[in-house]
Amino acid sequence: MAEQCTFCAIGAGGDGLRTGRDDVVLRNEATTAFVAAEWWPGNEGHVLVIPNRHARDIYEIAEADLAAVYATAKRLATAIRRSYGCEGTSMRQHNEPAGGQDVFHFHVHVFPRWADDRLYERTDEARGTTAEERAPYVTRLRDALGPARA
Amino acid sequence: MAEQCTFCAIGAGGDGLRTGRDDVVLRNEATTAFVAAEWWPGNEGHVLVIPNRHARDIYEIAEADLAAVYATAKRLATAIRRSYGCEGTSMRQHNEPAGGQDVFHFHVHVFPRWADDRLYERTDEARGTTAEERAPYVTRLRDALGPARA
Repeated sequence: MAEQCTFCAIGAGGDGLRTGRDDVVLRNEATTAFVAAEWWPGNEGHVLVIPNRHARDIYEIAEADLAAVYATAKRLATAIRRSYGCEGTSMRQHNEPAGGQDVFHFHVHVFPRWADDRLYERTDEARGTTAEERAPYVTRLRDALGPARA
Repeated sequence: MAEQCTFCAIGAGGDGLRTGRDDVVLRNEATTAFVAAEWWPGNEGHVLVIPNRHARDIYEIAEADLAAVYATAKRLATAIRRSYGCEGTSMRQHNEPAGGQDVFHFHVHVFPRWADDRLYERTDEARGTTAEERAPYVTRLRDALGPARA
């Protein structure tokens, strides 16, 4: 666990700086998935998937942890597709500041998508959210993932 | 193998509609990586990674193939970072037309990134490339991946 890493705290079952245990929708031995603190206006309720064990980026993450992260991301994409009423899903992952990375613990964004949502073009319209805004998406995903989500 | 699927053809060692064996930089039992046919103006030479076995999207792909695809993507991100002189890397993956998918065989984009390249904002500036434009990037990646690339 890296000291003062906000995603390490969430991966360990605690609370990070902006999100925490109330936002978690799936946790298993290697990974944690939670509704993201920051949203884009056409893609509310997107999810982050992290390895519980600290790794800075794609260059550093162990292959087994990477496989576990994407196995969880697949489950989340399926659950988002089923429970958000969206028309598609997409994922993105960034390495180093020039690559768009802002939290330096490997993470994958899983987005609900709609035709013409212009997700990429609206990159600079991201905004912070409250726990109250995130809660209905957390409930929806926990329900969709069912008892096997823990 | 899905009939008339251009990425199945590449995964089988043949040629697809716009790219083919000359663009392949890594092939193993489960995956193939090749320089993409379509580029964004600030991120030349980006790479696609596919499972050799046909799967339409994240919902359909087998977990083992998904793990293999991202293990290959990790190798490609590292090779791009080392050989392109870029400052970061990022990945994206799209499911269904509303999610931004255009070829219906699962694929991950691996991009070289530079500070302020505005990759996302320039989504509508993608353009097709020639084999001659792709060739120097193919050479660079084959050299960076070394003998273990096959």
